[in-house]
Amino acid sequence: MPSQKIFATPQDAEAAFYEALERCDAEAMMAVWAEDEEVTCIHPGGPRLVGFAAIREAWRTIFANGVRLKLRLSQNTAVSTPFAVVSTVLEHFSTLDDQAVSAPVVATNVYVRSAVGWRMVAHHASPVPPSSLGDAARILH
Amino acid sequence: MPSQKIFATPQDAEAAFYEALERCDAEAMMAVWAEDEEVTCIHPGGPRLVGFAAIREAWRTIFANGVRLKLRLSQNTAVSTPFAVVSTVLEHFSTLDDQAVSAPVVATNVYVRSAVGWRMVAHHASPVPPSSLGDAARILH
Repeated sequence: MPSQKIFATPQDAEAAFYEALERCDAEAMMAVWAEDEEVTCIHPGGPRLVGFAAIREAWRTIFANGVRLKLRLSQNTAVSTPFAVVSTVLEHFSTLDDQAVSAPVVATNVYVRSAVGWRMVAHHASPVPPSSLGDAARILH
Repeated sequence: MPSQKIFATPQDAEAAFYEALERCDAEAMMAVWAEDEEVTCIHPGGPRLVGFAAIREAWRTIFANGVRLKLRLSQNTAVSTPFAVVSTVLEHFSTLDDQAVSAPVVATNVYVRSAVGWRMVAHHASPVPPSSLGDAARILH
């Protein structure tokens, strides 16, 4: 059963999302998501997952199979309204000695304000084409 | 200058978005978008575009270079709140004689209610892996 943790701001929810991702913590990850049948999650190169249960199952599989990686975020954008926020961010994964493991990923994250605080309702991630990276590429390579 | 067309519902805005896409009509396309510096658009395999001007420029280039294609949508989902809606949909592009031109694309679309009606604030599209398609693949091939 997901935790009833309450996120007072969309920034708190986003911080918890990325902390859970970096720690490979499925329980903490799902505490960020709205328990809704039409929440959606698209991992890089993956199919669309619809609904809390399908999204939880996928994160559990990813975290069970995955290696722990460092995660750095950059170039955040946000469109904010009183009850919904759309955030985008570049995700840079690296090994513990700072070697980039792949091209950065761009994520679109949507949070909605509910009776139990801010929750994620959509995450869509896809690889960033290396030709478009500019400064970010210079930092990583 | 973008039109001041008012979309009374998020469904109206989404219909206008896909009509503009199918007609390769940049003016109609940009009438759907919020005039905001942090709206974001990610085309399949493409970089993140940030801001109304950058997004307009990219659509103009796409429409100037592109061929006209038929577009069929399927498997819509929606998370709805009074002032924001997150929609996802599978986009199936085909030539005029119904030959699929590529794997379907999954799009996450976000609309926000403003003083000038519903406007798009984010579009993130990426290819759907063929292995995940099931029924949709059978329809197309």
